[in-house]
Amino acid sequence: MSDETDPLVLFMPSGRRGRFARGTSLIAAARSLGVHVESVCGGRGICGRCQVEIVEGAFAKHKIVSAAHHLSPVSATETRYAEKRVLKSGRRLSCAATIEGDLVVDLPSDMAVNTAVVRKAVDTRVFPRDPAIRLLFVEVPEPDMHAPLGDLDRVFAALEGDWSLARPTVEHSVLPLLQKTLREGAWQVTCAIAHDHEEDRPHLLAIYPGLKNEAYGIAVDIGSTTIALSLSSLLSGATIAATGAPNPQIRFGEDLMSRVSYVMMNPGGRAEMTRAVREAVQAMIETVSAEANVSTADIMDCVFVGNPVMHHLFLGIDPTELGQAPFALALSGALALPAADLDLTLHPAARAYLLPCIAGHVGADAAAATLSEGPHRQDETMLLVDVGTNAEIVLGNRNRLLAASSPTGPAFEGAEISCGQRAAPGAIERVRIDPLTLEPRFKVIGIDIWSDDPGFADAAAALGVTGICGSGIVEVVAEMFLAGIVTEDGVIDGALAARTPRVVANGRTFAYVLHEAPQRTLTILQTDIRAIQLAKAALYAGIKLLIDRFSQPATADGLRSDPTVRIDRIALAGAFGSFIEPRYAMVLGLVPDCDLDRCKAVGNAAGAGARMALLNRAYRREIETTVSRIEKIETALEPAFQDHFVAAMAFPNKRDAFPALARVQALPNRDAAGMPLPGRSISASGTPDRGRRGGRAGRSA
Amino acid sequence: MSDETDPLVLFMPSGRRGRFARGTSLIAAARSLGVHVESVCGGRGICGRCQVEIVEGAFAKHKIVSAAHHLSPVSATETRYAEKRVLKSGRRLSCAATIEGDLVVDLPSDMAVNTAVVRKAVDTRVFPRDPAIRLLFVEVPEPDMHAPLGDLDRVFAALEGDWSLARPTVEHSVLPLLQKTLREGAWQVTCAIAHDHEEDRPHLLAIYPGLKNEAYGIAVDIGSTTIALSLSSLLSGATIAATGAPNPQIRFGEDLMSRVSYVMMNPGGRAEMTRAVREAVQAMIETVSAEANVSTADIMDCVFVGNPVMHHLFLGIDPTELGQAPFALALSGALALPAADLDLTLHPAARAYLLPCIAGHVGADAAAATLSEGPHRQDETMLLVDVGTNAEIVLGNRNRLLAASSPTGPAFEGAEISCGQRAAPGAIERVRIDPLTLEPRFKVIGIDIWSDDPGFADAAAALGVTGICGSGIVEVVAEMFLAGIVTEDGVIDGALAARTPRVVANGRTFAYVLHEAPQRTLTILQTDIRAIQLAKAALYAGIKLLIDRFSQPATADGLRSDPTVRIDRIALAGAFGSFIEPRYAMVLGLVPDCDLDRCKAVGNAAGAGARMALLNRAYRREIETTVSRIEKIETALEPAFQDHFVAAMAFPNKRDAFPALARVQALPNRDAAGMPLPGRSISASGTPDRGRRGGRAGRSA
Repeated sequence: MSDETDPLVLFMPSGRRGRFARGTSLIAAARSLGVHVESVCGGRGICGRCQVEIVEGAFAKHKIVSAAHHLSPVSATETRYAEKRVLKSGRRLSCAATIEGDLVVDLPSDMAVNTAVVRKAVDTRVFPRDPAIRLLFVEVPEPDMHAPLGDLDRVFAALEGDWSLARPTVEHSVLPLLQKTLREGAWQVTCAIAHDHEEDRPHLLAIYPGLKNEAYGIAVDIGSTTIALSLSSLLSGATIAATGAPNPQIRFGEDLMSRVSYVMMNPGGRAEMTRAVREAVQAMIETVSAEANVSTADIMDCVFVGNPVMHHLFLGIDPTELGQAPFALALSGALALPAADLDLTLHPAARAYLLPCIAGHVGADAAAATLSEGPHRQDETMLLVDVGTNAEIVLGNRNRLLAASSPTGPAFEGAEISCGQRAAPGAIERVRIDPLTLEPRFKVIGIDIWSDDPGFADAAAALGVTGICGSGIVEVVAEMFLAGIVTEDGVIDGALAARTPRVVANGRTFAYVLHEAPQRTLTILQTDIRAIQLAKAALYAGIKLLIDRFSQPATADGLRSDPTVRIDRIALAGAFGSFIEPRYAMVLGLVPDCDLDRCKAVGNAAGAGARMALLNRAYRREIETTVSRIEKIETALEPAFQDHFVAAMAFPNKRDAFPALARVQALPNRDAAGMPLPGRSISASGTPDRGRRGGRAGRSA
Repeated sequence: MSDETDPLVLFMPSGRRGRFARGTSLIAAARSLGVHVESVCGGRGICGRCQVEIVEGAFAKHKIVSAAHHLSPVSATETRYAEKRVLKSGRRLSCAATIEGDLVVDLPSDMAVNTAVVRKAVDTRVFPRDPAIRLLFVEVPEPDMHAPLGDLDRVFAALEGDWSLARPTVEHSVLPLLQKTLREGAWQVTCAIAHDHEEDRPHLLAIYPGLKNEAYGIAVDIGSTTIALSLSSLLSGATIAATGAPNPQIRFGEDLMSRVSYVMMNPGGRAEMTRAVREAVQAMIETVSAEANVSTADIMDCVFVGNPVMHHLFLGIDPTELGQAPFALALSGALALPAADLDLTLHPAARAYLLPCIAGHVGADAAAATLSEGPHRQDETMLLVDVGTNAEIVLGNRNRLLAASSPTGPAFEGAEISCGQRAAPGAIERVRIDPLTLEPRFKVIGIDIWSDDPGFADAAAALGVTGICGSGIVEVVAEMFLAGIVTEDGVIDGALAARTPRVVANGRTFAYVLHEAPQRTLTILQTDIRAIQLAKAALYAGIKLLIDRFSQPATADGLRSDPTVRIDRIALAGAFGSFIEPRYAMVLGLVPDCDLDRCKAVGNAAGAGARMALLNRAYRREIETTVSRIEKIETALEPAFQDHFVAAMAFPNKRDAFPALARVQALPNRDAAGMPLPGRSISASGTPDRGRRGGRAGRSA
């Protein structure tokens, strides 16, 4: 069809490219490459959804010199559109512009064609789009007594003719208003079509008179503690509002196990918790809709992720089975259902999609984080860790993926720590300890300056320094270790009490005084160090089990890691992972050795993955396939867990080398290659038995 | 796979056959031929649904000598089943019996395996079955921490393994109880699977612990006057109860146009009528369920048919467009939806299916009658007429089908006739007139003897002779014509007043006294004859338009019928069609000439077709395809209608020959070939203009 003299066109962000005869419309070129370019009006130049931007310049790698004038001159259609609506300078309508030379074409996601206000891009990541719900404008032939096809059947025929759409099934609510809508729109209507699975029949959700040019979707990460929700345009792909709110189920139990217990102990408890979370989601939907000036009736699609207990409770499923071996999920596969079945008031026919769960303790949130970070799309081996009270761990690359969860307990979230608290104003979040003076300085949430800056005392007196949050605990323990206050084995060195008043006796052990104030003295106790050791040893042992398995052929059981397994990247996800300093996580041995600049906090990866599944149905198929081939490891069943756990009680680890860390951070008791030097053995209080806290039944996340 | 020495097996009623190696199980043989044999347990010998009966004897046509001993001896599985349940003598389980010689196998539909009582076969017609909803028993592996697939996902895997079922979508209501059900059934469950379109994904409707061995469906014909409903087992195919009830919409208007007017005049009128018909259907469902000892929660599928106005009102669609040109249907295609959307309380996830409508005046009832009578399955050319206040007409054979409706008005139902009434006790339904004495004798609904039998007077005095129903009117007019009381042109011959006191003057015309009684004298007036002429002329003219078109190539317009078009069969459907005597219908010229023994009343063919669609999803596809290729003729648009109408005002017709009728019934003014002899021209009062009664806007059915 095309030869080497035809212009070469590259579409971003997908990177697909091809040669096309001069005069080919950009939208036709994109479609022939399988690049989704939104269009509601089907090339009539009235919806403005197919806007593109030409990236000018020489792209040596692609052998393309792209210039705006390699497109046809601005057409009458585009001028007409720009007069009626907004068409930013440099933007073209791909249905009206034709290819006349080499081009690099960008599909932007910040189009404002309607009243909905795009305040700011909440998520700036750009990825190819192809939403499961689309708006398709059609002109329908008027009724003809000689060919008495029904009005709906002529709509379907127009959809097939203009959009190559197979005959859809139809939402019953469409039928009563159909004839009125067609006549009101003078036989021009816009159909909202749900078409998640390409091989399924499409479904007609709604029909509007004339051109309907906006439809929205929400992506929701239901965490045990916090629900995060974002609102995106299904047409532009822009995420236009986002909000977070506490999960109201907290009143039934702080952690997952206590919520499962609540269900087991209280008839109606499951229904109460389901109602609570659904009502919270509905309230958040109304918040973001109001903020973005969007009608909730224009929200037509939703994607939900959450850990297995959250996932089940949201669906109205009793999570009791998840609280006891064999931790059987009611369903693990992805689920599509009407949003109304979840008691959500959106468009009455809105759809909902839940990502698959990976295993009994590795939920749809971990699947979404995987989708977002994409270890399965990489040649490099990535470790993805979502740290909560239950850590979800995914390890692998495009060839192989493994997943597990580790019962870290709530220490990383500030619970079980004597002066711990949730991340909130007044909480210490950053700590540095001078290795010579052993004096600390710290930063408090809500105060922009460090504790040794002038003016801190006044600010602190006004706000109050109330405790230490998760990232602060990790930092203070790591700094104590680096300063020699805490040994490799996690013991606060009482001998230092002679050197500094910061180290004080506390019964048979010692403590470190981080902050003294009239209201409250914040002290790190030996038991706090132990709590962090237990949590991080559980996390690290889980990671090690995955590394062990990764080093073995897929079909065999392995107990020891092959030293050839190299972790190229580490992604720390979730609220805790977003605030923790990767260097300290590695100093304490939460995660294995890795180049520090390749160990990154990735924020709410679960929410980002949910948004990807909302905006591109291909990502749904991708994560469904990926999850089905993930090898699941139940840490409770692995005999090597205990061995790894014991070694991981030490800072950073009794056995493993941290050569990459050692290059940028001197470590006590380590050689230049990051290998441990001979030291004391760890104390009895750090046995793995206590670390497992009675085994799986008592775990929580 | 098989050779000529392998046994030959013929399955009835499908007639499919093939050769199979000795030792092949009957169920496997059936399936390999595409013959649907019900089985819930999947060959475990516990559900008893795959029962068959061997038809013994020599079948020369098929070259088969079939004998019961050509099956393997009764197995332990069958003995065990027969001990626990009912296995009629001669019945075998096709999953347990293997082929050992030539066989003719019958798939019976009268199995009683459960508590539901099969009182009598309501519909005795036997046809191949393959319902859209099936019960599938599976044994599900227990949860495994090493392969943490969800419970539902393991159910799906078992369905795929045992039943080759693609991964289903799932009804949300299944999820909350799934885990409890699996454990209650000790990992044996029965899944109710909806799988209407083979190419769509199946849908899991419900799940039951252990073996669930009964599911039901209803087939409903919503007529303007009467609703007919039957209840069938989806597993045995037996129709186990049926009922009829007046359509409560009658209180909003007797005929269709008055109901459409009610909607147009009354805000909320559409909703009232929708509610009325849905409530009536629900009440009928409860009646048949109680009668058959079936739980309404076990009713999982429904099929509905009705004329376009009934179809739309039942779906909650405003029928206003159907009351005015161009008579646009909201939808003409078949529709599948949840029964709950129709406010029906059955199984909460029950499905509903509506057959396609053919045109604005030819509804899903006509489609169902077509499915039942099967002109499209025949080489012979069939005329199918459903006579109501609006006649729906289908003409054709396997090569070509045409459909139209004719505005007959309510005369055939006894309305617009001076002494007419609905068919009810006290109505005259049969009439004979002695051509010599001109004395009538008649039969009355509710009295078993004729009016000239001894004892009639007493019975008539007790019951009252109150009027004449539709079939009685046709008979009395036809007998008056045959006796010479009425001329070919429909004029009551006043000269006969001299011969008999039965003919009396009535203003400027004459009348015939059919019955004199103290309570009421029943007299046939000249206006009554005119009403019948108008009605039958409209019907016949519609039929003629179809014959005209049938004689022309499919693409061209034709005005005159090709004399080579021969109608091989006539099927008279509907309540009126069931009671009318075909001979009289032909004498009056309601229908064209045809061998009298091939002109048959077929009862409620629409209801029968609905039942076929209920019990075999292939019939749904068959009628969908058939309707899409039916050529629709809008009689109001055909210039030839008026010409045909004028000719059809005469008895039986001014122009057309009735040779087949003439062979068995001498006709006044006709030669031996049934050709009209020269006669008087028809009177001015029978103009087609009056016959159209102001055109389409005033039509009703």
